[in-house]
Amino acid sequence: MSEAIKVTIWNEYRHEREHPDVQALYPLGMHHAIAEGLTGGLAIRTATLDEPEHGLSEEVLADTDVLIWWGHLAHREVRDEIADRVAARVLRGMGLVALHSAHYAKVFRKLMGTSCSLLYRDAGEKERLWVTAPGHPIASGIGPYFELAQEEMYGEFFDIPAPDEVVFTSWFAGGNVFRSGCCFHRGQGKIFYFRPGHERYPTYRDSNVLRVISNAVHWAAPVRREPPLYGKAVPALEAIGRAANGGGVPGRP
Amino acid sequence: MSEAIKVTIWNEYRHEREHPDVQALYPLGMHHAIAEGLTGGLAIRTATLDEPEHGLSEEVLADTDVLIWWGHLAHREVRDEIADRVAARVLRGMGLVALHSAHYAKVFRKLMGTSCSLLYRDAGEKERLWVTAPGHPIASGIGPYFELAQEEMYGEFFDIPAPDEVVFTSWFAGGNVFRSGCCFHRGQGKIFYFRPGHERYPTYRDSNVLRVISNAVHWAAPVRREPPLYGKAVPALEAIGRAANGGGVPGRP
Amino acid sequence: MSEAIKVTIWNEYRHEREHPDVQALYPLGMHHAIAEGLTGGLAIRTATLDEPEHGLSEEVLADTDVLIWWGHLAHREVRDEIADRVAARVLRGMGLVALHSAHYAKVFRKLMGTSCSLLYRDAGEKERLWVTAPGHPIASGIGPYFELAQEEMYGEFFDIPAPDEVVFTSWFAGGNVFRSGCCFHRGQGKIFYFRPGHERYPTYRDSNVLRVISNAVHWAAPVRREPPLYGKAVPALEAIGRAANGGGVPGRP
Amino acid sequence: MSEAIKVTIWNEYRHEREHPDVQALYPLGMHHAIAEGLTGGLAIRTATLDEPEHGLSEEVLADTDVLIWWGHLAHREVRDEIADRVAARVLRGMGLVALHSAHYAKVFRKLMGTSCSLLYRDAGEKERLWVTAPGHPIASGIGPYFELAQEEMYGEFFDIPAPDEVVFTSWFAGGNVFRSGCCFHRGQGKIFYFRPGHERYPTYRDSNVLRVISNAVHWAAPVRREPPLYGKAVPALEAIGRAANGGGVPGRP
Repeated sequence: MSEAIKVTIWNEYRHEREHPDVQALYPLGMHHAIAEGLTGGLAIRTATLDEPEHGLSEEVLADTDVLIWWGHLAHREVRDEIADRVAARVLRGMGLVALHSAHYAKVFRKLMGTSCSLLYRDAGEKERLWVTAPGHPIASGIGPYFELAQEEMYGEFFDIPAPDEVVFTSWFAGGNVFRSGCCFHRGQGKIFYFRPGHERYPTYRDSNVLRVISNAVHWAAPVRREPPLYGKAVPALEAIGRAANGGGVPGRP
Repeated sequence: MSEAIKVTIWNEYRHEREHPDVQALYPLGMHHAIAEGLTGGLAIRTATLDEPEHGLSEEVLADTDVLIWWGHLAHREVRDEIADRVAARVLRGMGLVALHSAHYAKVFRKLMGTSCSLLYRDAGEKERLWVTAPGHPIASGIGPYFELAQEEMYGEFFDIPAPDEVVFTSWFAGGNVFRSGCCFHRGQGKIFYFRPGHERYPTYRDSNVLRVISNAVHWAAPVRREPPLYGKAVPALEAIGRAANGGGVPGRP
Repeated sequence: MSEAIKVTIWNEYRHEREHPDVQALYPLGMHHAIAEGLTGGLAIRTATLDEPEHGLSEEVLADTDVLIWWGHLAHREVRDEIADRVAARVLRGMGLVALHSAHYAKVFRKLMGTSCSLLYRDAGEKERLWVTAPGHPIASGIGPYFELAQEEMYGEFFDIPAPDEVVFTSWFAGGNVFRSGCCFHRGQGKIFYFRPGHERYPTYRDSNVLRVISNAVHWAAPVRREPPLYGKAVPALEAIGRAANGGGVPGRP
Repeated sequence: MSEAIKVTIWNEYRHEREHPDVQALYPLGMHHAIAEGLTGGLAIRTATLDEPEHGLSEEVLADTDVLIWWGHLAHREVRDEIADRVAARVLRGMGLVALHSAHYAKVFRKLMGTSCSLLYRDAGEKERLWVTAPGHPIASGIGPYFELAQEEMYGEFFDIPAPDEVVFTSWFAGGNVFRSGCCFHRGQGKIFYFRPGHERYPTYRDSNVLRVISNAVHWAAPVRREPPLYGKAVPALEAIGRAANGGGVPGRP
C-alpha cells in the first residue's frame, strides 16, 4: 500500500458552466474542489462528460484504482458503451465512489440492479449525518455525527439492495431519513455511495465531507491478488490440486 | 394469505424437445415436473420461450405473484424488452425463483448487477447441500443436509452480490463449494436463487428439491401493502404529516 | 402453518402498578393491551416478573412459539438462570419480539453480545417510522411510513450487531435517527427488535404498532424441521451418506 | 496508519507443553510461530493463560490494537472477569482475531451471543479454502483458493450470527463445508474468525495461513476517532447542534 492510489474524479461539469450561482461556488468545477480536498497519498486526475469518450478511455480506466463520479443533468448523455465499460471495470476491481445525484447514473443503476429512486426536496434544510458503523474505516476522524447547514433532502425509500454496511444515516429537518453512506461489494470491486453534494451548496468545501470521501477512496482501493476463478469449466479435485502446487490451472488459457 | 399464491413457471423448453435423454426424463418439460411437485395452495400456470411474448405478457405478469425461471441454451433469445418487463415487475413486488442455469438469464443478471459467472463441471458427481440458515422458512422440512447423487457442479467464486441470506451451501465430491440457496431483496420483490437442476438428471423429481422450491414460492410471495414513496419530490414534514392523517400525499398523483 | 402460533407476552408489569399515569393508560398492564391487539390465529398467554420463575418455566417456554418481552425498571431482577433459559430456547427455535426498553434486557443483550446502549430523551416528541424494507413481511399492511405523535426518543448509535434486515428507520423531531425495526437470526431462532413503546404514551393502542407486532409474531414463528447437526463429532462422507439414506446419524445419541 | 499496529498474541499454551508431538511442531508455542510469521509493520507481544491475569491486564489491553486468540483445552480456566474485560475492550475498538478452536472461547461466545457449536472430525483430511469475497482486504495476496493437506474438519452448521462478510468457505474431503473466514463488526471493534489451526498440524507454518492472519490484523486495527454517543440522555436538536459547533456535548461528563 506504499504506492499512491490512482484516483480519477469524473464530473458531468455542466451546472458549473451553465448556472452562475454554481459557478460562483465552484469556478473550476466540483471535480477541482474535490481534488483539492482529498488527502493521503493519492495520484489524482479528472475527467468530464464532454471530453472524448467522456475522458474514460480503456487506458484511463486501466490506470485508475478508484473512480469518483458526480452527475445529474446529463445522465442520459453518458454513452451506454462507456457506462458498460466502467461497470465492467468495477467488477474487475476498480473502486467506485458515487456522489449525491450519481444515485441515478447509468453506471450506478447498472451495478445495483434496482431503480435507485428516492424522495427528494430542495429546501436548503439542515442535514445531520449520524455514524451508524463506528468501527468502519470510512468513519475515521468523524465525530458521532456531523452537520451540513443547508442541503437538498434525499429520503427513504431509497430503492437500492440492502448495503453491505451503512456507515451514515441522515436526519433532515423536514421529516425524512436516509441511508447516506452505503458500502457495496460487487465482483472484485468496492462501491461507496455518499449522499451529500447538491451543486448549489458548498458541500465539497466541508471538511467532514472531504474527509469521508478521502476515507472512501482508501477503503475502495483494489486488493492486490490474482483474480477469482470463474466463467470456466474446471476439472475435479486432483487436477486442480496439482495446479495449485505449481502447474497452470487446467481449463484456463 | 388465505388466497392461493399465483405461480407462473417459465421454462426455456428446448432441451426437452431437442435431446432424447432429457425428453426421457421430462417428457412434458421440466416446467410440468415442477408444477406437479409444488405444494401448498398454489394456482399454477406455465409459460415457455416460444410462446408469443415468451408467454410473459403484461397481463400474465400482473396476475403472477411468483415467477419460477429455468433457462440455459437460449438466454440470448429472450427479448430485452421482456427481460426488462420481468425485472421491473420484480422490483414492484413479484417474487422470482431462479433455478440452476438461470444464474445467467438476462433477468437475473440485470437484477444482480454483476456478471453472475461461476465455475462448472458436468461430471455427474455427488452434491450435498448443507443448511446454513436453520431458522429460515425456505429450509422448512429439510434435514441438516440433503444429497443429490448426480448433479452438474457449480463452484465459487459465484459473482453475485453478497446474498441477504444463504440458506444452503453445497459440497461437491470433485472439490468445490457453492452458495446454493441465496435470498435477495430487490425493491419490493424477493428473489431466491436455487442451484440444482441440470437437465440431464432427475433433480426435479427429488422430494427435497421440490420442497425447497415450494418453500421458496411461499417466502417470495408479495407482501400486501401500499407501495413505498419514491421517485417523487415531497414537501416537508408538516405537509406530509397532514397527508398521513387523511389527505392525499402531496406530489403523488 | 394452519395451527395457531403459541404466543407468550412477558411484561415486567411494574410501571402500571406503581405509576398512576401509566395505570390510567394500561389498567390491566401493557401485556393485556398487546394481547387484545394482536391478530391472526394466535394462542396467547401472558407472564410477568413477579410470578414464580417469572412465569417462564421450562414447560411454558417449551410450549411457546414466540415470546414477546417488555421490561425496563427491573432488568436486574430477572434471574440469570431464567434469562439463560430463555436465550437457550431462542437458539433452539423460539421467536423473540423485544419491545422498546427491552433493548437492555438481559436476554436481549446476551443474544446480541454487545452493550445495546443508545441515546435517549423523553420529551414526548413526534416519531416518524419510515419503512426501509418494503418487501418484508413485517411491513405488511403498513404505509410508506407511520407516525406516533408522542414518544420517547431513542437515537443512534445503537450498539447492536448490524441487523440482518432493517425494516423501519425512525426520524425524531428533536434531531435523531434510529434503526427501529431490526431482524436477527440467531441459532434456529428469529428475533425482532421494535423500538416504540414508552410506558407513558398510548403506543400499544396504536393500530400500526399492533399490526407490526402481529406481523413480527408470524415472521418469528419457528420453522418446523429437524434441528441442525452440531456440537458433535461426525464420521466422514460415506457414513454420513448412509445415515441420510435411512440409518441414524452416527455419533448422535 | 504510519505507526506500528500493536498486536498481542494470546495462546493457551498447554498442548505444546503437554503433548510431545505438538511440542515437536511448535517448540516455543504456537504464539511464537504466529509472531514470526506476521508481516507489515507490527509491534508484537505475547500472553498466555498461566501468566498473572492470563497476561491480559488492563494495561496490556489498553495498549493493544489487535488481539489474536488461540485456546482449546482450557477455555473454562479463563477467568470470567478477564473474558469480560477482553469483550468490553473489543466493543471499545480493539480488533480480535479468533483462531480455530477459539470458536468456543468464552470471549468469542460472549461476543457472538450464540452457542458457536459446530461439527468436527479429526481425520487429517484435506481442506481447501475458497475465497468467496474476492475484493476483501483479508484475501489480499491469496489465490482463488488455497489448500491445507491435513487439517481437522469443522463443519456446518456453525452456530454463529450471519457474518458481515464471509471471506473463505472451506471444502473438506470427508464431505463437509464451513464458513472459515468470518468478519463481524461489534461496537467499535472488528472481529475475524479464521478456522484453520489444529495443534497437531503445521498450519501456522503455512504461508497462506500466515498471510491471512497478517491481513486480518491490518483489517481489524481500530479506526482513530471519537467514540460514538450512546448510553446517555441527550437534549434535542438545537442544543446538540450548538455542541457540534464548539461546545461540550450536554449530558456527557
